[in-house]
Order: sequence, then C-alpha cells, then structure tokens
Amino acid sequence: MVHRFTPDRYHNTIGAHTPALTIADGDTVVTTCVDAWGQDARGERVTRGPNPMTGPFFVQGAQPGDVLAVQLERITPNRAWGWVRTPLAFNTVEPDFARQLPEREQAIGKWTIDLAAGTATLQSPTTRLGKLALPLAPMIGCFGVAPGGGEAISTATSGSHGGNMDYNGFVAGVTVYFPVFVEGALFHIGDGHALQGDGEISGTGVEIAIEVQFTVRVLKHKAIGWPRGENADFIFAVGNARPLDQALQHATTEMARWLRDDYGLDAHETGILMGQAAKYDLGNFFDPAYTMVCKLPKRILPTRA
Amino acid sequence: MVHRFTPDRYHNTIGAHTPALTIADGDTVVTTCVDAWGQDARGERVTRGPNPMTGPFFVQGAQPGDVLAVQLERITPNRAWGWVRTPLAFNTVEPDFARQLPEREQAIGKWTIDLAAGTATLQSPTTRLGKLALPLAPMIGCFGVAPGGGEAISTATSGSHGGNMDYNGFVAGVTVYFPVFVEGALFHIGDGHALQGDGEISGTGVEIAIEVQFTVRVLKHKAIGWPRGENADFIFAVGNARPLDQALQHATTEMARWLRDDYGLDAHETGILMGQAAKYDLGNFFDPAYTMVCKLPKRILPTRA
Amino acid sequence: MVHRFTPDRYHNTIGAHTPALTIADGDTVVTTCVDAWGQDARGERVTRGPNPMTGPFFVQGAQPGDVLAVQLERITPNRAWGWVRTPLAFNTVEPDFARQLPEREQAIGKWTIDLAAGTATLQSPTTRLGKLALPLAPMIGCFGVAPGGGEAISTATSGSHGGNMDYNGFVAGVTVYFPVFVEGALFHIGDGHALQGDGEISGTGVEIAIEVQFTVRVLKHKAIGWPRGENADFIFAVGNARPLDQALQHATTEMARWLRDDYGLDAHETGILMGQAAKYDLGNFFDPAYTMVCKLPKRILPTRA
Amino acid sequence: MVHRFTPDRYHNTIGAHTPALTIADGDTVVTTCVDAWGQDARGERVTRGPNPMTGPFFVQGAQPGDVLAVQLERITPNRAWGWVRTPLAFNTVEPDFARQLPEREQAIGKWTIDLAAGTATLQSPTTRLGKLALPLAPMIGCFGVAPGGGEAISTATSGSHGGNMDYNGFVAGVTVYFPVFVEGALFHIGDGHALQGDGEISGTGVEIAIEVQFTVRVLKHKAIGWPRGENADFIFAVGNARPLDQALQHATTEMARWLRDDYGLDAHETGILMGQAAKYDLGNFFDPAYTMVCKLPKRILPTRA
Repeated sequence: MVHRFTPDRYHNTIGAHTPALTIADGDTVVTTCVDAWGQDARGERVTRGPNPMTGPFFVQGAQPGDVLAVQLERITPNRAWGWVRTPLAFNTVEPDFARQLPEREQAIGKWTIDLAAGTATLQSPTTRLGKLALPLAPMIGCFGVAPGGGEAISTATSGSHGGNMDYNGFVAGVTVYFPVFVEGALFHIGDGHALQGDGEISGTGVEIAIEVQFTVRVLKHKAIGWPRGENADFIFAVGNARPLDQALQHATTEMARWLRDDYGLDAHETGILMGQAAKYDLGNFFDPAYTMVCKLPKRILPTRA
Repeated sequence: MVHRFTPDRYHNTIGAHTPALTIADGDTVVTTCVDAWGQDARGERVTRGPNPMTGPFFVQGAQPGDVLAVQLERITPNRAWGWVRTPLAFNTVEPDFARQLPEREQAIGKWTIDLAAGTATLQSPTTRLGKLALPLAPMIGCFGVAPGGGEAISTATSGSHGGNMDYNGFVAGVTVYFPVFVEGALFHIGDGHALQGDGEISGTGVEIAIEVQFTVRVLKHKAIGWPRGENADFIFAVGNARPLDQALQHATTEMARWLRDDYGLDAHETGILMGQAAKYDLGNFFDPAYTMVCKLPKRILPTRA
Repeated sequence: MVHRFTPDRYHNTIGAHTPALTIADGDTVVTTCVDAWGQDARGERVTRGPNPMTGPFFVQGAQPGDVLAVQLERITPNRAWGWVRTPLAFNTVEPDFARQLPEREQAIGKWTIDLAAGTATLQSPTTRLGKLALPLAPMIGCFGVAPGGGEAISTATSGSHGGNMDYNGFVAGVTVYFPVFVEGALFHIGDGHALQGDGEISGTGVEIAIEVQFTVRVLKHKAIGWPRGENADFIFAVGNARPLDQALQHATTEMARWLRDDYGLDAHETGILMGQAAKYDLGNFFDPAYTMVCKLPKRILPTRA
Repeated sequence: MVHRFTPDRYHNTIGAHTPALTIADGDTVVTTCVDAWGQDARGERVTRGPNPMTGPFFVQGAQPGDVLAVQLERITPNRAWGWVRTPLAFNTVEPDFARQLPEREQAIGKWTIDLAAGTATLQSPTTRLGKLALPLAPMIGCFGVAPGGGEAISTATSGSHGGNMDYNGFVAGVTVYFPVFVEGALFHIGDGHALQGDGEISGTGVEIAIEVQFTVRVLKHKAIGWPRGENADFIFAVGNARPLDQALQHATTEMARWLRDDYGLDAHETGILMGQAAKYDLGNFFDPAYTMVCKLPKRILPTRA
C-alpha cells in the first residue's frame, strides 16, 4: 500500500512521539520534509530547527530486537533553491586556523536547483568560484528510529538509532537497516540535501525541502548494533560517536559482526577481507557525534552462510 | 639524469642520516625497497623492521622552507608473493569486540602476485574466502623527508614530514609534495603494498618488496604545513595525528591554506567549495599516528591566483 | 520549607517528566534514592537501572536562562552494604590489556558500610586485599536538570544538563549550579556512592541507597554553559563529553568564562591565574560521556567585579 | 660518588646523543639546567628552545630491559625571576572560545622568585590579580631516557621514554622509574618550573633556570612499559599520548601491571582497589602528547608479592 502523507507537525528530537501515521510491513510512503531550518517547499518557515522530522511512522509488527529496513526510492528537491552556511566549521580545522575564520552566518550562499539539468548552481557569481555548478545528489541528512530506554535524542546528533548522520551515501537506491528499540520502530525522516561534500564540514549541505518516497520492511529477530545499509555495489555499516576514532571502531565492528553472523567468516577471514578490501566514507564531522561508514564491495563477498 | 640505485643498508627512522645518494633537482631514481619486515625480492630477510627505508636521497638545492615534489612514476612488485596479518587490529574495533579476536600472527596470509594478470590471489583456498583475487594497486606505505629540530622519527608512525601514512592513494601517477626541513630534504622511501584496504585495519597491506621509479623537483620558497599531492583528477592534503579528528583537522586546514594561497579564495569561498565538494580518504588507522586525506576534484577548482 | 519526599517511581532518563513534587525557591528536600541498579534501603529491587532518578522536582520561578543552585547538605547511606563491579572497565585500559581481563560481573564485591566508624570494608577477606577498609565519602553519581529542546537523556550519560558525572567531589557541603533549560528546572537526583576512586574506572563506586538532603535556590538571569560548583576551598566547573580532551576543554572554558563574567579578568589575567593555579579532577571515565572538573582555590581569586 | 657537572651544550631532542658524563649506579649528580627558552641563571640565552636538555648521562650497567631509578633530591631555582606565557593555549578551550583569545606572547608575565619566602610573585601589580603570590613548588618539566629504535624525539613532546610531561608532581622527594631502551640509559633533564598549575594550560609554568641534584640506580631485569614514580604517600604511573583518553589508558594499564607483577593482585583485586582508590593527576595538556598520571596511596597497598 502507498500512503501519501502530508505532515502538519514536526519533531526536533527522535523519540517515542505519538505516531503521525501507522503503516504496515511492506508499505510505501510518499511524503515531504522541510529543510533543516524548518522552511517548506514554498520557502515558508513552518517550524523550527534543528532538522525538523516528518513522522514518526509506526510500522506494524516491528518489535524491539527486529530490524527496520527502509528502502529510499526517491528523494526529490521540491523547491528551486537551497542554502549553505559558510565558512568551514571551527571544529573541522586546527585551533589556530579557526581563529582566522570569520563568524558563521546562515544562508549566506544560495544555490539554484535545476532538476531538469540535474545541477545545483551557486547564486553568487561575484565570488572567485564563478558560476559553480555541481551535480545534484539528493540525500537524507537525518533519519532514524526511536531509541530505547525512553530517550528522546536531538536531531542535531546521532547514535545507534541513526539521527543526524549527514552521510552523502544515503541517496535513492539505498536500503538502510535500523535496529528496532520500541514497538512500531517509530521512523523519523528529514533534513534533505541537494548535495553535500564529505563531513558536512561547513555545517550544511545544500539545504532543501524534499519529497521523499520510501518502503519499509520488518526483518524479525535480526538484532544489529548500528545502522547498516546497502546499494547496488556495496554493503556498509555506520558508526556514530566522538571522537571520529570511536565512530570508526563502531562501523568496523558492526561490519565484522555482519561478516561473522551472515557470511560465516571467522576472525582471520574477516581480517583478511576487511584489511585488504574495506573502504571508509566520512559522514557528519560537525555535530556532537561524528559518523564513519565502513563499506565492502558486494562482488567480493562470499556466499551467505 | 636517471640513477639506478641499489641500497645496501636501510633505516627504521626517518631522520638526518648520512645520504645514500646525492641527486639533482629533476633527477629520476630507480631503486628497490624491501618489505615492511625487511625481506627483499628473493624473500631473504636482509634487515629488520619496522618499514626499513631505502635512502635517504640528498636533493641538491633543497633548503628548509622549500617543497620537495616527488613524482611516483612506477611501483612494481619484484617478488611473486606478499603477506598480510590477520585478524583486525585491536584498536580498530570496539574494546569489547577486541576481546573476542584471536592473537595476531605474522604472515598468516600469503598472497600470490601475478603482474601479468594484475591480481593478488589469496593462497589459502580452504578459507570461506575461496580463491579471493583482488586487483593489484601497488602503493607506497611509508615515505618522507627528514624532520627538523634534529628529530629521527620511527617508520612506525607519521607526522608533517610524511612517514608511515599507508594511504592507498600513493600510487604511480601521483605527485607528492613534502615540506623541506633540512638541507637536501633527505628523502626516504619503502614499505610497498601490492594493494591495501582503507585504514590498514589489519595492520598490513599485501606486503611486498618493490622496484620503484620516481623523479624529484625542488619548489623554492613554497612553505607548506603537511604533505600534499595530486593525481589526474584530484588535489589532496594529508594530516597525520591521533585522534583521527586531529588528522582530519590538519588535512582540512592544509587544503584551506592551499585554496587561500594558490587559488586566492577567501574563507567564505573556501567554505562553500570544500563544504559541498571535499572528499576524505582514510590512510593508516593502526599506528601511533592516524592519517586522513582531504581531496578536491581539479575540474571544480578556480584558476590559480 | 522542608519537604520530606518519598519517591514511588523513578526515571532512567533526565527529561521533562511530570514533576514528582513542586517546591519553592529556598526550599529544602529530604528524600531517598535507590542504588544504580534500582535496589532500595532494604536491598529490594524496586525499579530498573541504569541510575534510577528520584524526582523531578519542579522549582517555582526557575526559567530558561536562570541557574538552579543545589546545596548538598547531607548524603547518608541508608543500607548497611554496597556493591562494586570488577574488574577494570575495558575502555579504561590499553586495547591489548583489555583482552586479558575477565568478564565483568555485577555485585561481585560487597562492602560493609559502617556509618559510626565512617568506613566501607570489603567483604571478601580471602582476596589479597584483606580487610580493605576505606573512609566513607558519600557522593552523588548522577543528578541534573531537564535538558532543553525536548530531549530526554539517559542517566547512563551526561551533558551540559548534568547527568551521570560520577565526580567524587559531589559530596555534602558542596553547592552545585545547573543551567536551567525548562520552566521549573526539573531537578533529578540519584546514584549514591559510599565512596569512589577517580574516574569510576571499574564502572561503579561502592553503590548504595541513600537519604539525601538538599536546598535549592534560583539565581535569575545568570546564564552558564555547564554545571559549576563550589565547596569551602574551591570553585569548580564541569565539562562532560568524549573524548576526555573535549570534557577538559568545556571545563576550562567554563572556568574562564566565570573569571571573565564574575571577576572581571581579561584573557591575560585568566591565563596567568589558571595556568599557574588551576587543578583538574577526573569524574566519570566509563560511560558514553566523560567528565573533567577544573578547579581554582578561592583564596587566590580576586574580589568579584 | 657525587658529580658536580656544568653543561656546555644542550639538546632539543632526547636520543642517543654522545654522553655528556658517564656515571655509576648509585652516583649522585649536581648540575644546572637552563629554562625552556635556553636562558641560564644569569638570564642569558645560551642555547635555543624548546626545552634544552642537560646531559645525557650514561649510567654504567644500564641495559635495555632494565629500569633507571632517578631520585630527585633537590630542585632549586637559581635565578630571581621566572616567566610565563599568557593567555590560555588555544587547544585547551572550546574552538569558539579560542577565537576570542588574544595572540600568545612570550614572557609577558614575569614573576619574582623569593627562595627565602618560598614564593613566586607576579610582577604586574596593575592587573586585577594584584600582587599574586603563589608558593614555590619547583618541578622538572622535561626529562627522560633515550628511546629505542634509533629515535630522537623532540623535547616538545613525550612518550614511553618520558620527555615533556610537565607533571607538577615531579618535585624533590620523588623517585622516577624509566624503562631503559639503550645501553647506559642516556638520561636527559631540564625545563624547570618554579610552580605550575595542572595541565600547563597556558603553555608554561613559571619558567626558571635551576640547580638540580639527583641520584641514579639501575634496577636490573625489571621491564616496565611507561614511567613510574613514588613519593612518600603514593605510587604512580604515567601515560603520555593524544588524545588524553589514551594517556589515561596507558597510565591505568601501567598501574594495573604494577599491581599484578609486584603485588600479585589478580584482575578482580586490581579492579576493586583501583576502582575505589585510584586518583588521577593531569600533566601536560598543551603539547603534541598529553600526560595523565594514575596514583594509589601506599597505605592501602597489600604487601609485595
């Protein structure tokens, strides 16, 4: 079943909020998300930041100890412009260099979104960057499921429940797996970016309002420790923590568990495969928790155990 | 001029050692490097680890405050096999998971190097990995110039002088730029890998002896803070430190300085460009200092100032 | 006014829960807290861990932007025994050493609490530690106020709202200052320790149920960034974060702001005073966020500006 | 035997330099050290920084695998003034706060050293700090033995060989134990501070030239991993690394090994004792490696195994 859902309120935490919509295992949702600052398709500020979430969606049959698979089928900017912050965030550079940076301002850089051309173009032709045009690569900055233990976690940060991971690999065509902590999983989604460099090191991607389509599935009795995902070419595991070292440790460990549990690899086989074939991508390096992603090419994976 | 140099001794630190060969600005060197454990092309252990260095090469005209450009022209395994360590290194996973890993052993995994086929193939067909064959991507694990202040730094670690960075982007076709700290720069090179995953998370690549060809140039009066490099598509800056956060800060800052000094970008322009287009690669995440690389595609760079 | 409050439910998060009791500025509360695992004065497990909180207490007149001062007047173990975990927590030692530690077990070490003698004595005389007796130094492991933005934060961790800081300086005689984020402040308290080494490096103090007496005051329009405190000899500022470096940066910065705002010191005076006279104490080094405390002796402070 | 040694050259690295003096096991040395910037007792700059070392002293009989015990018997300022840097170092505060700090300058704060009164007094009575007088507590900022593997390590940093630890517990009356990596140990010493707050967070103590008296002993076949020490009341272990978390892990692990090897404690006993009685002190939090010290009171230690 396909649900067309129009949100009328938003959340700035991911938690056990009253469900906005109840859906079944296998259902598809088409909905909209405002941008990180609460601006909608028309550019009107309808709620406050950071990262207002559409949802949560209660998925029938999802129980703690299950996994919620979310297939991202379409992420479409629904506004003709996006905005970015400048300059680099102070925590992304050496302390001495941070002292030389100007104050950070909001929305200083506007970009024109051209869906037909598939580009975002900087609207400040007077800079030395000229008419900088980058290919659209629409992604989800912040999404996840309600954490356990009664927590409600700010959408400015991330954890094992997902959250503000700002990984530019969260694009259409990807399936993301979240551990389920509460009945119904309570899936939240928002914070669309038309495109974004690794790390979100200026504190934003090209921030946009979006229309998004996704399909959920419940995988019963399949405990995982951190968000996982896959696209056509890779499987990947996500770690969220500070320092970045710890995020990397979580991602590496989650991938090693995956190889052990689903592919039957022992510790030596895992070390051989990951040591020579693992790739890492950087997600958010701006917010209270940083994000690191560990990937393996599908073509070199052994058959599942 | 092309020098064919056969080393007869090696160094386990990068420092102001007696030059092995004096070369001129613009000269090319063809030489060999033993593997990380001191084994040569024949598999004989001719010196001790870690990462014995060939050199140092004294480059005439290089003075503190200059830059040494090293163009990697060819990196060829000169032995039909390489070795890897297993399992994952204990510092690359969660502390609890590290407790479940077996002890680490040397050379447990041997790989066959097939130059004609362009592959490295695991010699342990009884594992669940089967006849795992990965494409050769020969790289330099450890190289750099003598640090300043009289330091001699172990080849097990890295710093602003280069060292054991284990970045799988250091392949033939890349030009690397090192800051010069002492007269003659004193360039060291070694630690060849037939291929390696990101992070060297099992503590090794596929460790090989190599023949290497490189050409040096001295760029006068061009102070840089950290190693930089470029290939056909990207410019990149390297940071080496612990935690990984700090390595990333160094790499980001060095790239921002590059954009400021050579491309004339102000802090807002730099933030816009890097925020939306920077990519990060992970080098070593095993040794005392970790390595992070910040890259920008050449096609989006403005013209040089 | 003195309130004698008997809790009948507990919270495992610090958040905007329904107030358990409304009190006025200047009121005193005498209440009880169960231990970290939910065991009460009789040793019965009446709720679940981690760190069940008594409260929250709604303090009339407290508004966001104010400070809540909590004077800890008495912390009395109300049970004749406490428990500890052994061995050292895996994240407090080198990864290689963690591999040599046994599995962690709960309550393996029981201690006898003797209020008259003022000691806690290990009940395992067969160990090589013999009849180890340490002086009682009852402290609060976890307390704080509801965070802003609708967050509910697990009592396993800490932040600018306080939380599980496990600082053995939080003893009777100390006044603690919390920033107020929500109306009424919503003060939570629990997790008593009969005594504890620095860092809570085995994951527990000597865990006890307690009776506690405290008095609250509202300081209007006095924004602070992190918990502060004072005792007879010192003023101190608390930072909570990972890595420990960041916790230390928060504590140092908060103390520097204090000297600037209340004592009128400029940056040079602050650097001179803190550089030569600051002391640091280690709070929690076990949980998701670590705690560092920056102290200055009162006797060297200039008069308030 | 007592050697009165007058240095005529200094080293800015700790490494296998030509011995300045050969001494026997049990010998005492009385010598002088210039300040961190190379200024001697008369205030003349006789060498360059950072932290010029007197020595190295070759200790007869010391072999790799032994321990060098250095008893600090006297540390006497031999100049009537010291200097400090202001303000707080940029890496000791939050990135945003670092942006508000003024540039750092050398020697902006001079202090008068009064040996008779036992005080250091700030020579800037026009500040809001007035005539700030702090008790003298003369300490060694930087000392250690030559590292192994041919390394020569800058006196700006620290490691398992010792180095620039800036721990204000390194005062007269303390015995320090260093692992020996090279024949003769090659002991270096310098960087006296009249006093210093924890962390050396402004980047200096009150920097002075000193006369120092110490006695060395060689403990044969007693491998340790990190510097250790003891005073009248405590034994302590030192960890040097970044981030501070890792320094703490080294210190904790070294203390746990000490309890295991010399006191026969198992992992549970160690966890009980350290969990409830360990104290931590902060050494350097300014330089490339940070320093953390783990202490245990001697009175609670079991008898040696």
